[in-house]
Amino acid sequence: MIVHLESNISQEELSTIKEKLKSIELKTSEVKTQFGEYLIGIGKKEFDIRAIGTMKGVKDVHKVSDAYKLVSKKWKVGYSQIDLGDGVLIGDGHFQTMAGPCSIESEAQIESTVQHLLENNVKIMRGGVYKPRSSPYSFRGLGQEGLKSFYKICNANGIKIITEVMMKEQIADMVDYVDIFQVGARNAQNFNLLDALGEVDKPVMLKRGISGTLNELLQAAEYIFSNGNERILLCERGIRSYETAYRNTFDINAIPILKAKTHLPVIVDPSHGIGIRSFVESIALAGIMAGADGLIVEVHHEPEKAFSDGQQTLNYQESKTLFEKVNKTVQFRDAL
Amino acid sequence: MIVHLESNISQEELSTIKEKLKSIELKTSEVKTQFGEYLIGIGKKEFDIRAIGTMKGVKDVHKVSDAYKLVSKKWKVGYSQIDLGDGVLIGDGHFQTMAGPCSIESEAQIESTVQHLLENNVKIMRGGVYKPRSSPYSFRGLGQEGLKSFYKICNANGIKIITEVMMKEQIADMVDYVDIFQVGARNAQNFNLLDALGEVDKPVMLKRGISGTLNELLQAAEYIFSNGNERILLCERGIRSYETAYRNTFDINAIPILKAKTHLPVIVDPSHGIGIRSFVESIALAGIMAGADGLIVEVHHEPEKAFSDGQQTLNYQESKTLFEKVNKTVQFRDAL
Amino acid sequence: MIVHLESNISQEELSTIKEKLKSIELKTSEVKTQFGEYLIGIGKKEFDIRAIGTMKGVKDVHKVSDAYKLVSKKWKVGYSQIDLGDGVLIGDGHFQTMAGPCSIESEAQIESTVQHLLENNVKIMRGGVYKPRSSPYSFRGLGQEGLKSFYKICNANGIKIITEVMMKEQIADMVDYVDIFQVGARNAQNFNLLDALGEVDKPVMLKRGISGTLNELLQAAEYIFSNGNERILLCERGIRSYETAYRNTFDINAIPILKAKTHLPVIVDPSHGIGIRSFVESIALAGIMAGADGLIVEVHHEPEKAFSDGQQTLNYQESKTLFEKVNKTVQFRDAL
Amino acid sequence: MIVHLESNISQEELSTIKEKLKSIELKTSEVKTQFGEYLIGIGKKEFDIRAIGTMKGVKDVHKVSDAYKLVSKKWKVGYSQIDLGDGVLIGDGHFQTMAGPCSIESEAQIESTVQHLLENNVKIMRGGVYKPRSSPYSFRGLGQEGLKSFYKICNANGIKIITEVMMKEQIADMVDYVDIFQVGARNAQNFNLLDALGEVDKPVMLKRGISGTLNELLQAAEYIFSNGNERILLCERGIRSYETAYRNTFDINAIPILKAKTHLPVIVDPSHGIGIRSFVESIALAGIMAGADGLIVEVHHEPEKAFSDGQQTLNYQESKTLFEKVNKTVQFRDAL
Repeated sequence: MIVHLESNISQEELSTIKEKLKSIELKTSEVKTQFGEYLIGIGKKEFDIRAIGTMKGVKDVHKVSDAYKLVSKKWKVGYSQIDLGDGVLIGDGHFQTMAGPCSIESEAQIESTVQHLLENNVKIMRGGVYKPRSSPYSFRGLGQEGLKSFYKICNANGIKIITEVMMKEQIADMVDYVDIFQVGARNAQNFNLLDALGEVDKPVMLKRGISGTLNELLQAAEYIFSNGNERILLCERGIRSYETAYRNTFDINAIPILKAKTHLPVIVDPSHGIGIRSFVESIALAGIMAGADGLIVEVHHEPEKAFSDGQQTLNYQESKTLFEKVNKTVQFRDAL
Repeated sequence: MIVHLESNISQEELSTIKEKLKSIELKTSEVKTQFGEYLIGIGKKEFDIRAIGTMKGVKDVHKVSDAYKLVSKKWKVGYSQIDLGDGVLIGDGHFQTMAGPCSIESEAQIESTVQHLLENNVKIMRGGVYKPRSSPYSFRGLGQEGLKSFYKICNANGIKIITEVMMKEQIADMVDYVDIFQVGARNAQNFNLLDALGEVDKPVMLKRGISGTLNELLQAAEYIFSNGNERILLCERGIRSYETAYRNTFDINAIPILKAKTHLPVIVDPSHGIGIRSFVESIALAGIMAGADGLIVEVHHEPEKAFSDGQQTLNYQESKTLFEKVNKTVQFRDAL
Repeated sequence: MIVHLESNISQEELSTIKEKLKSIELKTSEVKTQFGEYLIGIGKKEFDIRAIGTMKGVKDVHKVSDAYKLVSKKWKVGYSQIDLGDGVLIGDGHFQTMAGPCSIESEAQIESTVQHLLENNVKIMRGGVYKPRSSPYSFRGLGQEGLKSFYKICNANGIKIITEVMMKEQIADMVDYVDIFQVGARNAQNFNLLDALGEVDKPVMLKRGISGTLNELLQAAEYIFSNGNERILLCERGIRSYETAYRNTFDINAIPILKAKTHLPVIVDPSHGIGIRSFVESIALAGIMAGADGLIVEVHHEPEKAFSDGQQTLNYQESKTLFEKVNKTVQFRDAL
Repeated sequence: MIVHLESNISQEELSTIKEKLKSIELKTSEVKTQFGEYLIGIGKKEFDIRAIGTMKGVKDVHKVSDAYKLVSKKWKVGYSQIDLGDGVLIGDGHFQTMAGPCSIESEAQIESTVQHLLENNVKIMRGGVYKPRSSPYSFRGLGQEGLKSFYKICNANGIKIITEVMMKEQIADMVDYVDIFQVGARNAQNFNLLDALGEVDKPVMLKRGISGTLNELLQAAEYIFSNGNERILLCERGIRSYETAYRNTFDINAIPILKAKTHLPVIVDPSHGIGIRSFVESIALAGIMAGADGLIVEVHHEPEKAFSDGQQTLNYQESKTLFEKVNKTVQFRDAL
């Protein structure tokens, strides 16, 4: 059960409500986010929800049978929207493309990419400075110095930044230089990291785990929300399957199902979702028709020379074509 | 290697070519289809392909390194097109929708469905008369009597028929009453059935196996082609995965990859691909944007009362909306 | 519900029971096997089972909630045993090893293998004469001629035969020359083949599908039993997964679970289950400790020269060691 | 390439070797563990390994083509052994059972469990104090206070402790109270945590990821080793598959394959590997026959009342029987 509290609720009213919940054997969590204050009640006893709905200080009350609560559409019917500032909105009718390299490599690379995004009216740049790598001997990113360069150049050009955070300790060093924290597939159930990101007032994009279920993805989002941060994006990036004809199996089904289950925006990542450069466009456009709120795509000025595996990375010409088709497809879809 | 033979090749020329192939240690299969005559050479010895290309009776010669040969795009660069007669074309720029119930239940049901298809300009009706069922105690379809009714009504109304064949012995009884034979996911590697369908001059739509690879699907098609039947459609209907939020994982990646690997048309089946009625539309439109040549979808006048599980079946109102959006999306895609 | 009928039931008694079942809205199937006569009632209406149990002609009556009925342990608590004659028993305390090549290649090969089996006290030889192959251009086995040689040599030496049947039409040609029909993984849901094997009085070993569930395997067995053949063996041969370090994922869990769900014997196939020669022994012994009733294993006098992929095939020395360890492990297990 | 250095190598010798590696374009990592000092060279240039092997300060040099190096059996042919003190050894001929509850709940529970282990000669107790939970509203363990009680009681009774660490920050608080750090399946690719555990002088047991490959597991171990900690155990705990008849698919194949690829000990976890209490024994014994060096199993005095899901947890009587059979099976295997 979710009790949405009035913003001006008094301490006394809050205590009365909590007493009431305790009396019906609900274990209660208090959640205070950027946008609201909630009590989450967990328990199995049957009770009349109206007895709570009419209490002082209660804005609204909802039974939510899902394992996740605050991210469920069962209580918040309308779609959430993430506002990055400067008019960059994601969700609830606003589509955004995020593009850039797998890894930040140099200032020259950042400048070139920013220029390319500006020319194509793309507002958000992706790029990793902390890279999760299977082998300990691989390049692990430029770290905070890379991030500062990334920020300096993007900020000067009005481009927003999304970049991956890998552990709690990095958050403080990163928070001033990112617009969206990304949680990678390998950290999809790193619950301590999720807890910590719940305490930050920056949006978080959660990638689905390597073989994560949609239910696990939504519960991971619940970790962030229940710690105080409502600004969450979900990202479908393909799942692991037996098929070897491509890198991952992009789960197109995930998109309409997530849109039905949660009010959070859903982003598609066709670069990892299929992992083969020449097919990224098809999956991107399919994802849009399935209902995506945004797209994240790997772009590099010289994919063949990219630090990380550039097999799934578009060059500037390919991405320019993609951006144009994406815009047309979003327009077509929204008018259909 | 594929040697495409001249249609007027003499027996002597053919013998000479076969001798030549034998001399370079190639195991040879002769393939004669509705549209052409081929020699398939399998072997590992290196040789100069030009020595064969210049022989009398040879139209063209191609090295094809794929496990499948005749269905590969490596020798036939243009897309194949299936002509069902009366102007009903599939592939190479022509999109078709196939719609109808899971099972044929009665003449009244067929008539109602045909009427619905006619009103929506859909040219092909699907419907099973032989049903593969997990349990031996379940309804297994109306059999040949059902098929005759199905044919009588559709034929009178200019509607083409696609229906599933489950074993070799059924072919003779079915061949006069079907326009497309469907091979179901459970028979995707029933090689004797595939052999037999290669000897029939009716198109065959092959569904991907429950957990079939794309490579296996293409090799199954090769069985049909190499037995003499070029008229093959491939169908993506979802694969089995760990995710339980839906019935199957629709493999959207399969579509651009198949379109790159084979010249055969690719059909999408969102009804089985996601298995939840309210999400069929999203997957259908996504499939089109990914490059599909056709759509097969379950429609029933009363889905709740359908013999088979109606959970994935659209009613008439829902399918009418779908058909309209499909048409618009195909147009949009082709103009993009 | 399963009604086990008395062997001397009169037609009148049978009619009375069927009337009774009809009156409580049960759809009824009559099943007559080598060993018994049953009525299977399918329906949802609640009723008092005792009212049936006390009717004349009824030996026993059982409610079985599983999707499969006759193969369930819910009605037949003791384990079934397959008697191949000459004292060769499988199941219910009797363990058998089946060994031999992937494909029957020549009389010399059969003779050599038989000699090897005799020396090691192995009673059943495996070997394919009809081979399911992914590619239509691959060797598909020696067919009936091969089977006749196989039979002649084995029969003369008291060795039993297990070999794969791929389609209904082959059954009549094979039935006199096999001791156990094998249904391969690709035909695990070829329901027409299963129906037909239900009408044969020879044991059938059913392999689990490429990605088959245990529930599907049991329902496939139900097809055979409900058509009249109780003599069924189930075989775990590995499932398809994302892991590429081996050929298939041997599902060791399947063994105790099948032993709990069904009275049928369970055979393990480590050759396909891991697909790497040097690890076959480990999986075989593990399978025994998990409760298997038998083992099927690929053995060839020269694995490197085997027609089919010999990567998973043991040579004589390796298999001799395996047979000895298998015997010791079965003894150890049964005494534990 | 791995260069195993002499323990008394001089700084000058080390510099000379590093210069040499640089000259053949190898990227070099220095690794210093409890037991040895190594240089890892990564590069693609061909060179004569003998030129390095004969340098002063070099004990041995090995080419290792695997993605993982130090954990590979390609350079260290003998099996590693973990010594927990007081004669508790794991690996290279020494088998250990680790048993206890999913979660530490109270001092009474710890005392009861310790008594049970002592009576059965089990030397290592498992029990979680930091619990990864899918839902943020679930019990997350007793934390450091629980660990201190756990340690106090176990230490007084000569029982060793294995418990899960979830993040880098917990290490310092835990290190004095654990004998083995466990990394859970959800943190199998939490590379920062792995790095940090490489700097600790306590053994680490790495669980395979939810859908982790064996290659990923070995590379995760390489993270720990290359940061300085050689004392690593690998644990197979089942992978995620499509089958729903049990909780996870225990990958029995993993055991012989890991034993062939790495010198590290391999532990089996049948409790999570099948997830059903009555089948834990079968999988445990199968795992031993497949080559496991140890067993970890959930035991609780009242499984039905355990904090966490007790469905896979044995009670004392069941586990007593298991421990006896485990001992006999290890003896039987080692003598086979």
